[in-house]
Amino acid sequence: MENSNGKLQWVFPDCELPPPGESLLKGHESIIVLNMNDDLASIEMTLFYSDRDPIKLAPSLVEASRVRCYRLDNPEDMGGYVVPKETQYAVKLVSNVPVVVQYGRLDTRQSDMAFYTTMGLSV
Amino acid sequence: MENSNGKLQWVFPDCELPPPGESLLKGHESIIVLNMNDDLASIEMTLFYSDRDPIKLAPSLVEASRVRCYRLDNPEDMGGYVVPKETQYAVKLVSNVPVVVQYGRLDTRQSDMAFYTTMGLSV
Amino acid sequence: MENSNGKLQWVFPDCELPPPGESLLKGHESIIVLNMNDDLASIEMTLFYSDRDPIKLAPSLVEASRVRCYRLDNPEDMGGYVVPKETQYAVKLVSNVPVVVQYGRLDTRQSDMAFYTTMGLSV
Amino acid sequence: MENSNGKLQWVFPDCELPPPGESLLKGHESIIVLNMNDDLASIEMTLFYSDRDPIKLAPSLVEASRVRCYRLDNPEDMGGYVVPKETQYAVKLVSNVPVVVQYGRLDTRQSDMAFYTTMGLSV
Repeated sequence: MENSNGKLQWVFPDCELPPPGESLLKGHESIIVLNMNDDLASIEMTLFYSDRDPIKLAPSLVEASRVRCYRLDNPEDMGGYVVPKETQYAVKLVSNVPVVVQYGRLDTRQSDMAFYTTMGLSV
Repeated sequence: MENSNGKLQWVFPDCELPPPGESLLKGHESIIVLNMNDDLASIEMTLFYSDRDPIKLAPSLVEASRVRCYRLDNPEDMGGYVVPKETQYAVKLVSNVPVVVQYGRLDTRQSDMAFYTTMGLSV
Repeated sequence: MENSNGKLQWVFPDCELPPPGESLLKGHESIIVLNMNDDLASIEMTLFYSDRDPIKLAPSLVEASRVRCYRLDNPEDMGGYVVPKETQYAVKLVSNVPVVVQYGRLDTRQSDMAFYTTMGLSV
Repeated sequence: MENSNGKLQWVFPDCELPPPGESLLKGHESIIVLNMNDDLASIEMTLFYSDRDPIKLAPSLVEASRVRCYRLDNPEDMGGYVVPKETQYAVKLVSNVPVVVQYGRLDTRQSDMAFYTTMGLSV
């Protein structure tokens, strides 16, 4: 147990990109990947929607012994793909080496909205 | 591990439907089901209460390779059943194929209330 | 997997009872236990502190096919024990039959505080 | 299952120390370790960054049958190490005996920011 560096597949069923808004901290979603291996991790994300076919993004890399924050509103982190805003979607993330993954969302659409996080679910 | 599409049973012990309120985003609860299979998923929800017998809802479907958001305040998503507001309840969700499930609640009853989420618990 | 009703032991490392405050919804903590069995569940909670010995509460019951919300600020839910406010503690909950357990906290100490939840951790 | 006291390794991929700010409750991050064993727990934390090598902190102790809150902004809890503020990092925590671990963050940078928590992920 104590030698494991994580899991290969992670799933985030409830994603939705909020508008960035005018506040100090801009509304956004993030997926954070921790690679505790001595090798590069190659990450493949697939996006699922409620009314259209899934989209498979171009693979990306996380360096050995590094954490990488993917901003889901940043096409450079998404293999050039532009995630539609205010649309229900889900993310499946598959790595070629074991990693640990967490999700966060900051929503600033109204003053009682919030920043929240959840650990990834590895299935 | 990397070929799994999820689990068959998910449980959400702490549910309570907030009033929708007057704010821009209406108070609500959601259960989001991701079906990564090539087949339809048939979903059966059972609601548990603190002071009455459980209610088994009519089954519903999630299409293959799609994510579906069940709004728990929307009888059309609940097999016609109207969930009582501001009442403690719990949800058990059983699928005939493996799925991944997440819960979210937006509560706007006062300005310091929040939007929160938790991954489902598969037992 | 689909026939399981939960786990016997659940642990909540980060508890702290907030002051109730003057707002519409009072600051509090809850532990919610879902008993999906046909039998009563007998629940034993142990509270751990940072600077004193653990406290084992008197057992309590959750009826068959019911959900029960334990308000941690309510001595009637805690076997008569009064949880100290604004003090770091942790809860271990052991049931004689499998149950599913979730934790929630509402903190109203300042306007940007929040309502949050986390699934229990079964170890 | 009911005799287990936890796991040996816990991982928190998404850490970032907020500025303390001017509000009543200061922005901070915490990692809370519950030691339900009859023996001392020796805790080793390793911090991972996005652009530099990992840092291994000096070991620390959690007494038997006690819960300990590590304030990540407090060098005394971090073996003298000063965690940089507003920087993405991740924490791996390894114990010599099984423990249960949770993470919390309070961010007060703007009025709609929040207090949130997540159970640790044991891999």
